[in-house]
Amino acid sequence: MLYAVILAGGRGTRFWPLSRRALPKQCLSLDGGPTLIQRTVARILPLVPVDRVLVVTGPDMAEAIRAQLPDLPAANLLIEPSARNTAPVAAWTAWEVARRGGGTICVLPSDHMIADEHSFRAALGLALTSAGEGGIVTLGIRPTHPETGFGYIEPVAPTAPGCITPVRRFVEKPDHERAVELIRSGCVWNAGMFCWRSDIVQEAVRRFLPRTAAAMQAWSEGAPLPSVWGETDATSVDYGILERSDGIRVVPGEFGWSDVGSWPALAEILPAQEWGSGVGDVESLRSTGNVVYSRDRLVALLGVEDLVIVDTPDVLLVARKAEGQKVKDLLDQVERHRPRRYD
Amino acid sequence: MLYAVILAGGRGTRFWPLSRRALPKQCLSLDGGPTLIQRTVARILPLVPVDRVLVVTGPDMAEAIRAQLPDLPAANLLIEPSARNTAPVAAWTAWEVARRGGGTICVLPSDHMIADEHSFRAALGLALTSAGEGGIVTLGIRPTHPETGFGYIEPVAPTAPGCITPVRRFVEKPDHERAVELIRSGCVWNAGMFCWRSDIVQEAVRRFLPRTAAAMQAWSEGAPLPSVWGETDATSVDYGILERSDGIRVVPGEFGWSDVGSWPALAEILPAQEWGSGVGDVESLRSTGNVVYSRDRLVALLGVEDLVIVDTPDVLLVARKAEGQKVKDLLDQVERHRPRRYD
Repeated sequence: MLYAVILAGGRGTRFWPLSRRALPKQCLSLDGGPTLIQRTVARILPLVPVDRVLVVTGPDMAEAIRAQLPDLPAANLLIEPSARNTAPVAAWTAWEVARRGGGTICVLPSDHMIADEHSFRAALGLALTSAGEGGIVTLGIRPTHPETGFGYIEPVAPTAPGCITPVRRFVEKPDHERAVELIRSGCVWNAGMFCWRSDIVQEAVRRFLPRTAAAMQAWSEGAPLPSVWGETDATSVDYGILERSDGIRVVPGEFGWSDVGSWPALAEILPAQEWGSGVGDVESLRSTGNVVYSRDRLVALLGVEDLVIVDTPDVLLVARKAEGQKVKDLLDQVERHRPRRYD
Repeated sequence: MLYAVILAGGRGTRFWPLSRRALPKQCLSLDGGPTLIQRTVARILPLVPVDRVLVVTGPDMAEAIRAQLPDLPAANLLIEPSARNTAPVAAWTAWEVARRGGGTICVLPSDHMIADEHSFRAALGLALTSAGEGGIVTLGIRPTHPETGFGYIEPVAPTAPGCITPVRRFVEKPDHERAVELIRSGCVWNAGMFCWRSDIVQEAVRRFLPRTAAAMQAWSEGAPLPSVWGETDATSVDYGILERSDGIRVVPGEFGWSDVGSWPALAEILPAQEWGSGVGDVESLRSTGNVVYSRDRLVALLGVEDLVIVDTPDVLLVARKAEGQKVKDLLDQVERHRPRRYD
């Protein structure tokens, strides 16, 4: 049986002020269409029926996610008692799938965009099939530029879509020069998507994260989750499991993937307009390269370049595009001066 | 008897999107306090009682002005049938004051800021007193910089506050070099404020604008204003009367005057903040020199400089400050694409 585990616990402060504590990035419609998590679920349904889609999130945002996924069975929305990174979530969902009879799981982020869904499902189907035979299979993204914000996966030999290749090692976020080198040597981006059987996860967790395994064992024997959750290892799947495992394989894919990491990245996934790109009604004169997001009002631009303009009911953000990655710094300051009012 | 005529027919598109057809610049609160016209009337009341304050405006904006000046007698709100520049208004109000028994009139714009009201009334009182003896007396503003957007008044000899000096001539808007020269030679800014007796105005209108005089005569004999208004000379007081008159005198003043001609000028009349100046709740990081106007939401600025940001319920304007004078160009474009929706 195939299962999908969708990780939807992230806060995504880089999309403030559109994203809020109760409405994080995965719950946003960045292009005016369905939200990122709605698309993530819809994209997987041709492979995995909705009663085997598990969505994991935190208490703050559970309400928004429930509202956005009305067809998801209530028992499939898993609310983590607190954020402890991804390894405890991977363990919990493996024990949950085992409780349901076991199966092969694909673990997917909830806040990425994928333009070519057919190619995505082809790559994922291949990875799931391969993972059904044992081991861990990751999806790799063919790099389009020497990005320094992602980790890389180095296969033992150059690979291509449709191939399954053993992984030599995982590489942490590189500097620019190193990124160029990694791409030249055939590395692919680590997009945090991987497939494994529930019993394989359990085995790996018992071996590498025994405290987490013990907590999950206690939970599966009836202990309430909140009472054991604090005993788990608060680490990432990458660091806690993948980097320590042998025999990992990678399926590279090219399917118009974007993690849409910040407001400026919106320009990559939306059609270019004279004034830049974005969502909303815009009138402009002598303005270029801007990213605009406004659902409710006319945005009039006069002689401005390379700005990010985000219009929400209670906050208006105007940022230089080059500083678009630093929205969190501004949010931190807003929080210090006006606690819990705009976060 | 003293009368004040307040010219409130201007549209003031340079403050779009805050200013609209039905809410022009004079009806705005640019600093969060009373509106410009409310202040203009309040400022004159220690000299002229409200039943001798006449406010002239157009049909589009009459409603807003009536609402903002609840103490103004209904008969003192004069609604011009159509905009025909200032000379017909000057004539009409002179005939109206004559109808009420005659008196000395000060003609004042409704959309300027004056920081030092005591000095303003001292200068205006002097001008009114002098005008009571005949002729035309203008108020001049001591220049603070070689402004190219104003006309200048050249006295026959250097003058100072408290003095009444004959005017040699009016000078049209100069270029920068000429403006420097004019200031050096003792010229003052023409702020469009002048005093004259109603009979002196009538005499000047009969002499220089006989068609206008005939129209006013017909009106004073019972013809409806709309039937004669089209017969008046659509010209300015400056061009139609002042520049052709002899014996004009000027009273120079220094009273923190500003015509607040566009959004960037707001910076001159509001306290400086780390991020610039303006009205509203602003949180900023690495941002300077901006002009912000927002009544309803938090404005969050990140790494932006020298922008004008105006937040209204249906339009958000973001402009480079250096283009702040060209808001009208953008409004024209909005009008072409979305007629009568945001004007």
